[in-house]
Amino acid sequence: MPSSIGLAILGPGNVGSGVVAALRNGVARYGAQVGRPLEIRRALVRDVTRARDGLDASIVTSNFEDILADPDVQIVVELMGAEHPAREYIEAALASGRHVVTANKEVMAKAGSELLAIAAKHNVRLLYEASVGGGIPVISPLSRDLLANDITAVTAIINGTTNYMLTGMAQSGTDYDVALAEAQRLGYAEPDPTADVEGIDASYKLAILCGLAFHVAVAPDEVARQGITKLGAKDFRYAEALGYTIKLLATGRLVDGGVVASVQPTLIAKDEPLAKVDGVLNAVQIEGDLVGRVLFQGRGAGANPTSSSVLADVLDIARDIVGERRPPEAIEYRKLPVHPPAMHSSRYYMRVTVSDQPSVLARIAGILGEREISIASCIQFETDDSAGTAELVITTHHATGAALDAALAEIRALDVVVEVGNVLAMAG
Amino acid sequence: MPSSIGLAILGPGNVGSGVVAALRNGVARYGAQVGRPLEIRRALVRDVTRARDGLDASIVTSNFEDILADPDVQIVVELMGAEHPAREYIEAALASGRHVVTANKEVMAKAGSELLAIAAKHNVRLLYEASVGGGIPVISPLSRDLLANDITAVTAIINGTTNYMLTGMAQSGTDYDVALAEAQRLGYAEPDPTADVEGIDASYKLAILCGLAFHVAVAPDEVARQGITKLGAKDFRYAEALGYTIKLLATGRLVDGGVVASVQPTLIAKDEPLAKVDGVLNAVQIEGDLVGRVLFQGRGAGANPTSSSVLADVLDIARDIVGERRPPEAIEYRKLPVHPPAMHSSRYYMRVTVSDQPSVLARIAGILGEREISIASCIQFETDDSAGTAELVITTHHATGAALDAALAEIRALDVVVEVGNVLAMAG
Repeated sequence: MPSSIGLAILGPGNVGSGVVAALRNGVARYGAQVGRPLEIRRALVRDVTRARDGLDASIVTSNFEDILADPDVQIVVELMGAEHPAREYIEAALASGRHVVTANKEVMAKAGSELLAIAAKHNVRLLYEASVGGGIPVISPLSRDLLANDITAVTAIINGTTNYMLTGMAQSGTDYDVALAEAQRLGYAEPDPTADVEGIDASYKLAILCGLAFHVAVAPDEVARQGITKLGAKDFRYAEALGYTIKLLATGRLVDGGVVASVQPTLIAKDEPLAKVDGVLNAVQIEGDLVGRVLFQGRGAGANPTSSSVLADVLDIARDIVGERRPPEAIEYRKLPVHPPAMHSSRYYMRVTVSDQPSVLARIAGILGEREISIASCIQFETDDSAGTAELVITTHHATGAALDAALAEIRALDVVVEVGNVLAMAG
Repeated sequence: MPSSIGLAILGPGNVGSGVVAALRNGVARYGAQVGRPLEIRRALVRDVTRARDGLDASIVTSNFEDILADPDVQIVVELMGAEHPAREYIEAALASGRHVVTANKEVMAKAGSELLAIAAKHNVRLLYEASVGGGIPVISPLSRDLLANDITAVTAIINGTTNYMLTGMAQSGTDYDVALAEAQRLGYAEPDPTADVEGIDASYKLAILCGLAFHVAVAPDEVARQGITKLGAKDFRYAEALGYTIKLLATGRLVDGGVVASVQPTLIAKDEPLAKVDGVLNAVQIEGDLVGRVLFQGRGAGANPTSSSVLADVLDIARDIVGERRPPEAIEYRKLPVHPPAMHSSRYYMRVTVSDQPSVLARIAGILGEREISIASCIQFETDDSAGTAELVITTHHATGAALDAALAEIRALDVVVEVGNVLAMAG
């Protein structure tokens, strides 16, 4: 048995480079978690002459057979994208007894059930958390954490490009063409945006989700699709007037003994959680008989979030390979201190009842200043003329609990201070 | 080897009854998922004379030793709550070689690291997904799906009682006492609300989350705590004026080589996702170096959501026990149809440009009515006097795609209709 877990990376492009970098940065941690180091033994590229960060030239190849020929490659990580030849490579890797981790939504949507059957036949694993929702855990929660549920609906925003465009259209009243140009300028949309704006990308992801949620094989071309290209500023104005916003919604439901699956621009009431998922964020909402509605939200694309999911799958398989592993839920605790409240740093809100005199704020500000607590805002909210008092609300920039407590003690002692009311933390 | 997986339920109260009912309802499904039926062999109660739904009197006992004496009990499910004697029972079950699933936040917060070590020593598993966030997957994503990340912060709303109260105070301007009375009336708050309103319950859950996120053992009494009892309607008014709302926030962060952990009422800017988590919902936001921020949201309490998590853990262990199982990600697909768009049912939004004549709406409404499509609203948004046209936005109640398409064909053919613009689905 080799002393490391051997990986092969197919396609070290954008996501692939992220995975390679994360593996390098986390080498000690991952080795400890698995009980054996993870080692990239091979990388499949198109052009072997190009130098690649973190990959020794000796392990780079443009010939897939080199990977199958290396007996120490135990996990193949497919990050090439597109259906071919990724699908054939995944199949060959599984058939050769290798575990496979893939981020390939197109392959999993079109051939997932066949490939999972091949994996089962060869007693190896095929994991694909990164194929839907980038860094958001979705596949694993559906496979494991929600398994006790009869799942009846999946509703998702799973294309960051279109969500960025639609958010822009909703917020700035621009038309489709302007939103597309802006997304292309920022690199969120491809020069040919068809796969995103026509909902094709989302239909792949929805097909995968339907398979997991309902245990029904849904082909991507069985997903009803409507793109966003005909939406105009007008539609957003009218939706707004009706109390709605417009999102490209991927919806799967179990209805009348069958599955309804669609990707289409949809009006969503503004107080729904999904209506608030803006910009390049993704979100998946799942409805089960026991759990009710759960929502998972995060960054749906990008090298780092996608690496998070790819590596979670790699680590899961690696811990399986190291058979004598401790149960996965055991935690190796680090000896780090838990800081006392005096060391906590926060912004603060404080409500202070004071005598209604001109000098009061100066004196409070002076005390805060001595403790190096900067005032962010100060508003006098209420005056009680009969009592001759006023209520000040002061917010501060970051300060430690110790500095705050010392300042509050002095503020309480001021003759012009009637009472220090609530002092609350402010997030951020 | 027994032909079923034997379970013992400790404490079939509110959550326990939910688990028993879900096991009964899902018996066939769970048996298929595991490859062997799940069987409740024992139930530990205080009063054996009380009849319990779904539990035969012959398996009910008030003596914990009866459970240890049954060699066919393989998984002990602890749902008693409180520290003692739950902790001793969990320990004894683990030491006897049984797997344990628990929903007990107090025990896991105070003794989690010791109990996990005992489980590891006896080569059994101790799972506790239900101890934090009810039905929301949190423990498992932190243990598995986000494992590749260096996690730097956990920010959570993990007490439904206080979140219900604070949401009420924010929305209706009531004071603390009124909000508490209302929550007690609805059964969301206990007669003695201390554990909730003083943040004790949340501090248990945060201690568990910190252990998982940072791999540092944080004792619940090391969590800085501030309750919500002193909050007044005034604070919500002032927060609102500043653009904030107030939530009981549980925060853990890795700072300066140590952990900062606090549960305290906190002002959150209104556009932050956590500011929008209202009522009895819970949410946990996790920040990692790769994934960025991910948010998990759902119902944090209640018999059904909690059962969802308890049973996910039970199924996970049961599949482990049935060693010859297929890889967990293989899906047994059901043969169900994917319905064509004509069979989809939805509410619709349609934008129609028409001649500005009084009879137009009647004719469109007539066509929709013939197809049994009810109009929910109709607004004339814009009139173009020079062209003599107006723009109608019509929203409908639920109708099938087939009915809609047929109606749209007739509407397009009307001489008074210039153009049918966008027709979009409406969620709900």
